[in-house]
Amino acid sequence: MKRLTHIDEAGRARMVDVSGKPVTLREAVARGSVCMERETIRLISEGRAPKGDVLATARLAGIMAAKRTCELIPLCHQLNLTSVTVDFEIDEDNKRINIESVARCQGQTGVEMEALVAVSIAALTIYDMCKAIDRGIIISDIMLMEKSGGKSGVWKREGLSGDP
Amino acid sequence: MKRLTHIDEAGRARMVDVSGKPVTLREAVARGSVCMERETIRLISEGRAPKGDVLATARLAGIMAAKRTCELIPLCHQLNLTSVTVDFEIDEDNKRINIESVARCQGQTGVEMEALVAVSIAALTIYDMCKAIDRGIIISDIMLMEKSGGKSGVWKREGLSGDP
Amino acid sequence: MKRLTHIDEAGRARMVDVSGKPVTLREAVARGSVCMERETIRLISEGRAPKGDVLATARLAGIMAAKRTCELIPLCHQLNLTSVTVDFEIDEDNKRINIESVARCQGQTGVEMEALVAVSIAALTIYDMCKAIDRGIIISDIMLMEKSGGKSGVWKREGLSGDP
Amino acid sequence: MKRLTHIDEAGRARMVDVSGKPVTLREAVARGSVCMERETIRLISEGRAPKGDVLATARLAGIMAAKRTCELIPLCHQLNLTSVTVDFEIDEDNKRINIESVARCQGQTGVEMEALVAVSIAALTIYDMCKAIDRGIIISDIMLMEKSGGKSGVWKREGLSGDP
Amino acid sequence: MKRLTHIDEAGRARMVDVSGKPVTLREAVARGSVCMERETIRLISEGRAPKGDVLATARLAGIMAAKRTCELIPLCHQLNLTSVTVDFEIDEDNKRINIESVARCQGQTGVEMEALVAVSIAALTIYDMCKAIDRGIIISDIMLMEKSGGKSGVWKREGLSGDP
Amino acid sequence: MKRLTHIDEAGRARMVDVSGKPVTLREAVARGSVCMERETIRLISEGRAPKGDVLATARLAGIMAAKRTCELIPLCHQLNLTSVTVDFEIDEDNKRINIESVARCQGQTGVEMEALVAVSIAALTIYDMCKAIDRGIIISDIMLMEKSGGKSGVWKREGLSGDP
Repeated sequence: MKRLTHIDEAGRARMVDVSGKPVTLREAVARGSVCMERETIRLISEGRAPKGDVLATARLAGIMAAKRTCELIPLCHQLNLTSVTVDFEIDEDNKRINIESVARCQGQTGVEMEALVAVSIAALTIYDMCKAIDRGIIISDIMLMEKSGGKSGVWKREGLSGDP
Repeated sequence: MKRLTHIDEAGRARMVDVSGKPVTLREAVARGSVCMERETIRLISEGRAPKGDVLATARLAGIMAAKRTCELIPLCHQLNLTSVTVDFEIDEDNKRINIESVARCQGQTGVEMEALVAVSIAALTIYDMCKAIDRGIIISDIMLMEKSGGKSGVWKREGLSGDP
Repeated sequence: MKRLTHIDEAGRARMVDVSGKPVTLREAVARGSVCMERETIRLISEGRAPKGDVLATARLAGIMAAKRTCELIPLCHQLNLTSVTVDFEIDEDNKRINIESVARCQGQTGVEMEALVAVSIAALTIYDMCKAIDRGIIISDIMLMEKSGGKSGVWKREGLSGDP
Repeated sequence: MKRLTHIDEAGRARMVDVSGKPVTLREAVARGSVCMERETIRLISEGRAPKGDVLATARLAGIMAAKRTCELIPLCHQLNLTSVTVDFEIDEDNKRINIESVARCQGQTGVEMEALVAVSIAALTIYDMCKAIDRGIIISDIMLMEKSGGKSGVWKREGLSGDP
Repeated sequence: MKRLTHIDEAGRARMVDVSGKPVTLREAVARGSVCMERETIRLISEGRAPKGDVLATARLAGIMAAKRTCELIPLCHQLNLTSVTVDFEIDEDNKRINIESVARCQGQTGVEMEALVAVSIAALTIYDMCKAIDRGIIISDIMLMEKSGGKSGVWKREGLSGDP
Repeated sequence: MKRLTHIDEAGRARMVDVSGKPVTLREAVARGSVCMERETIRLISEGRAPKGDVLATARLAGIMAAKRTCELIPLCHQLNLTSVTVDFEIDEDNKRINIESVARCQGQTGVEMEALVAVSIAALTIYDMCKAIDRGIIISDIMLMEKSGGKSGVWKREGLSGDP
């Protein structure tokens, strides 16, 4: 029978004890999408500077937030990321910007949450920079794509195809 | 012609100057959903304590993150929220937990980002507490539902029905 | 019948909504004590520099922590303190250092937590700076002494006498 | 002659240099108590949800604050906790809630401050959630119970008995 | 006789009490320079993207740090900035990048520190992004240019000419 | 041809991936100066307490900021400092206070930014504590003096003489 690892026997929230876990290279890949009006995506993708700055701002916001994951997610462990990237794909046909983040560390616990936080805050930053012209923007499909490292090994999302 | 308010004439990212705006009551409502396997949602909703704690943890994470919005979103203004709520609806039929946040302040700028950050971090916290049993969880439909206050007045999302 | 103001009708933790409260001058006074071995208190109080630095460090730690109260106490409101002081009284006879903090702001909610956080973190800092020579130090009697401002007006602790 | 390890030869505050210390498993146990009126403790302990939420909120606040100890205590080292727990015992007879925190890490320095910060912020959170009905609550007996790991080895408080 | 406003009569550091000061529009302008090798400045200014991103990153770092000034400077008051800008001038002849920040708020205390923090962190970020190719970079001439608002009124630096 | 290590092939800001780097002892020494009026430097250096407190406050501010470097500098890695010092030299003849910081850690990446942040925030704190009597203070010559550890080995600034 599966049990929620953050809920102990008495039903109290707890941080999983990773004291005895070995230090290994951990990696996680997460994705998400920001869906907007065609005019908004054009304003972002046209013109050199505006596009550069909207996505450059969102990239930095994602990277910086990833480093503070353990302050935001109550039961997350502190860890020192050795790398985190945030990349974007502008999909004008589907009126969405796709976001992918890859996080890495040498540690005793995984970095899924760091990659997911990077994607989420990058998406929210895009919203913030465009909300005056398009309040209806929707953030969707934030999910883990794959992870590796640690006892549970490699995990990959099934049933999806295509690169971001 | 619409312009991105965070990009100035030379294409540089900027914080909108709100020095001259009056202080009014601002409110924003945001929503989002966390989609998971049926067994996961059952583990959360069954048993009093586990359910209480997963959602209680996510609620607190959302409230606490809302207060730190301006640290996460680069061009967001600092403001002192007078209220922020985070509520959940367990929709077993559709295998999703819906989240709604309402943020309020007396200020010179809106609180949309605060409500959206609360929803996003609450959703990520649910993921964190369940990821050991369900890595495939997807966070979707994070969006502003309505806002009021300030010069731009009331805005409501159209074409949606039903309460969370 | 009294009710816990942070627990709503369904038993969920909530931040009290202060949107409708007027802005008034708020003040709170809190105290606490750090009890240690006689030799420890002598090391702190003798010698000019060491004494100055232990308490100067604790004072700054208390002031800085007070400004971050809303990050530490989950349901606390953000507010901009207009003043916070942290003062010490060395009571060699009773082998304790007494701490007093006074916090003030112009705001919609009280500053009790800010004064209490200042006292607590100042006390913990004294512990940190002395723990290598006196691990048995005990922090006690952290309490609100008085508060004023807002609808509930003035409150003073009864049955105590003497200044810190 | 004992010296304060945070005060260097010229009396200046300093962070102890732990560059040469080996990485070992560190553990610390701290306790504290929150003393309140009988009616307050009953409001907390009765009714499932309110009790759950007051203590659940305090537990999370303690865990989250422990992770930020080095931001609060000026001369504390940064370290990555591998575990931190916060537990409560309701002692209605003595009108107090006892708090115990256990912190662990693999590191070059001890985790006493992390356990003490967890207890202190959990206690302050209980105060915050009950202050509207019981302003006179007193936080006491915050102290280290035991520590292990590192060169100084095991330390246990003497002369106390009973479990929290 | 002039007195240090942050040192009280007993020589203890203190936060200036601004509880009685009126809320007025405050503004401060600060500048600073980053001096580097000719090849470094060329790498930054040539090529579209690299230049854009080095300075765009430094701009965001400065803006974000300004919002956290009161966490960094121990006796600074919390305040909610209504605007903060960070701009750059590439002075290839003198092998330096000049930085100017303008901060504004409606508040009870000035925003000089916010503007100076923005300039300092923007300068450090330029260093961080170029240090692998030019470790000798020097940050200089960080200073207040002018301030206005509040009881002390307008102050302008004398004896300097030219725009950044 | 040299390349900016924080700019990837497509010109996007990135955090350097240090996953494969070995853990070694890293050290960095940085310096800076604060130039002020003769009367200001005399107020700081005369009288025991005021002097002690201005520099003691600046020292703590520098140490605490060093620990938060990765939150301030967008592409900096998280790391756990094992030591950081901040020292001052009062140079009345040249009307300046010189600052030196030494940072150390066992890690996969260097600590130059941590030492530079410590110096910068210590300098800004001196400004903050003296600005009411001397707004014209200038912060200058913030620079790396030497670094060691890691693949790039030892680096020392050339052409300078004298101790701070």
